[in-house]
Amino acid sequence: MKILGVDSGATKTKSIIADSEYNLMGLGTGGSGNYHYIGVERARESVKETIDRAIAEAQVEPEDIPYGGFGVGALDTEKDYEVISGFLSDIGYPKERYIVNDVVISHYAVNGGRPGVTVVAGTGSIAYGTDQSGENCRVGGWGWVIGDEGSGSYAAVRGLHEASKAWDGRGRPTMLTELASEHFDLDVPREIISKVQKSDLPEDVASFAVRMTEAAAQGDEVAMRIIDEGCEELATLATTVVERLGMESPVSVGSVGGFATDDLVFKKFEEKVKNKIPGAEILEPISNPVIGSVALVMEKIGEEVSVEDLRDLDSEIKNRLE
Amino acid sequence: MKILGVDSGATKTKSIIADSEYNLMGLGTGGSGNYHYIGVERARESVKETIDRAIAEAQVEPEDIPYGGFGVGALDTEKDYEVISGFLSDIGYPKERYIVNDVVISHYAVNGGRPGVTVVAGTGSIAYGTDQSGENCRVGGWGWVIGDEGSGSYAAVRGLHEASKAWDGRGRPTMLTELASEHFDLDVPREIISKVQKSDLPEDVASFAVRMTEAAAQGDEVAMRIIDEGCEELATLATTVVERLGMESPVSVGSVGGFATDDLVFKKFEEKVKNKIPGAEILEPISNPVIGSVALVMEKIGEEVSVEDLRDLDSEIKNRLE
Repeated sequence: MKILGVDSGATKTKSIIADSEYNLMGLGTGGSGNYHYIGVERARESVKETIDRAIAEAQVEPEDIPYGGFGVGALDTEKDYEVISGFLSDIGYPKERYIVNDVVISHYAVNGGRPGVTVVAGTGSIAYGTDQSGENCRVGGWGWVIGDEGSGSYAAVRGLHEASKAWDGRGRPTMLTELASEHFDLDVPREIISKVQKSDLPEDVASFAVRMTEAAAQGDEVAMRIIDEGCEELATLATTVVERLGMESPVSVGSVGGFATDDLVFKKFEEKVKNKIPGAEILEPISNPVIGSVALVMEKIGEEVSVEDLRDLDSEIKNRLE
Repeated sequence: MKILGVDSGATKTKSIIADSEYNLMGLGTGGSGNYHYIGVERARESVKETIDRAIAEAQVEPEDIPYGGFGVGALDTEKDYEVISGFLSDIGYPKERYIVNDVVISHYAVNGGRPGVTVVAGTGSIAYGTDQSGENCRVGGWGWVIGDEGSGSYAAVRGLHEASKAWDGRGRPTMLTELASEHFDLDVPREIISKVQKSDLPEDVASFAVRMTEAAAQGDEVAMRIIDEGCEELATLATTVVERLGMESPVSVGSVGGFATDDLVFKKFEEKVKNKIPGAEILEPISNPVIGSVALVMEKIGEEVSVEDLRDLDSEIKNRLE
């Protein structure tokens, strides 16, 4: 049996075809599938394109794939559900579709949908959890302007604040000034103003997050403080889910996303979660939430969800994309 | 003799006609004159429109106004100067023009261009100073994404971070949640995400700054802390100018802008500047930097610049615009 898994976020869409042993058969990547940003038609085309790429690579026919799991970032309200399920139904395949918000497939990616907490830290940040009784809750995810604490965009923006202060002579000297000059290709520091304000925020600015972890790993104290405070924010997202659901120890806590998988970030995050949630079981971070769409389908059709197999699938995709 | 004064920023342009006794004869307001954002043609039209309105109200002919002072936000590089002086020359009047960056006219507005420090805190923030020898320096003004600490947009963004945390149950309870719901007309808190991300930042978001000072004045501790830290940032802008120019006591420190003129903000700012710069003379904040364009012209043509008359002109404009 073949399963389609789709992860469609604000900036990228990823589709995979897997068999019921969680082997990767096809992979397709493409642009945003968020109809709020690009309209229904373009969102549908984005998603269809990545599905068709995955299907082509898997060398199967659309009708050979009975099930599809979809994690869609734009899905928040009932109206969103109508619009999204509408354009997915226009695509026409697979025949049976399970459609959820992308934070839910992140949770399935981390632990197969079992009770526990999942913290997503990529360009943005959000946490989600489910308890034994099936109750769930979502914390964070307010977007990069007024939220997303602890995410890549948060680290990048805070780092650039510190760089501009250092350029002015009103902040601590930091290697972030040099890294920012390099990263944004600046002849003079003030060129950064128009670059960050005209850029396709948050991705362009958030790309500086890798420099932040680089600087922190090299011992830059300004960067270290920002990474430390960011991880504190991520841990607080997790504890808030635990408190709101009244979860009992031991709680399983996993993480997902480009920022969460950085070694330094994960280590700090792990340390802080252990301090805040006694007895917490910390899972290794996952790179590709799309695997959760496959797990979602498996659960819905009554098949066993193997967390181990999911992690192998994650590694396989990660290797393919590197 | 009549003088034209123009203040053309990122979001608004203001033109006035004054006589040499600093009496207000005409006032015209309009949209952005920043050619980086809207192109040369529209920038020229914006500026021309406000000039023509001021001239019409003053019931004079363009040729009756020999001098114009222009403070232009978009003026940073030599190329900017060429473009801006080019389109101002296309307008054709007044015949003699003095064109500077808008932070310079803010400085003239505060103290007639004498040695001292001027802190601008409106939607953005920046400080500028000149010393006895005519040396000058500029600190801050890096834009709302990575800078503008202590400005209205900074207070607004930080306040909305705290509101979203409080909504999640991961921050201190604060009246900012209620004020944000009201201000952004939210049915449910999460509606704010698309509102702030689709808005014409920074003005739309920065408009929340008035709620921040409102909440702080009513004793909301979350808002008070943000206002306090913002004023600390504004005071640091001033001290950095003093240090970089090696200015000697007593230093005169003034402020300009919609956020700086708030009572609470001014009081906090004054207190912090006095702590950081012993013997500093703090001037009352100015609302309309455009008066500085008139002062600039007066200085350039060798006329006396009266700080007292300038302040009366500021009040007159303020009353007109209320």
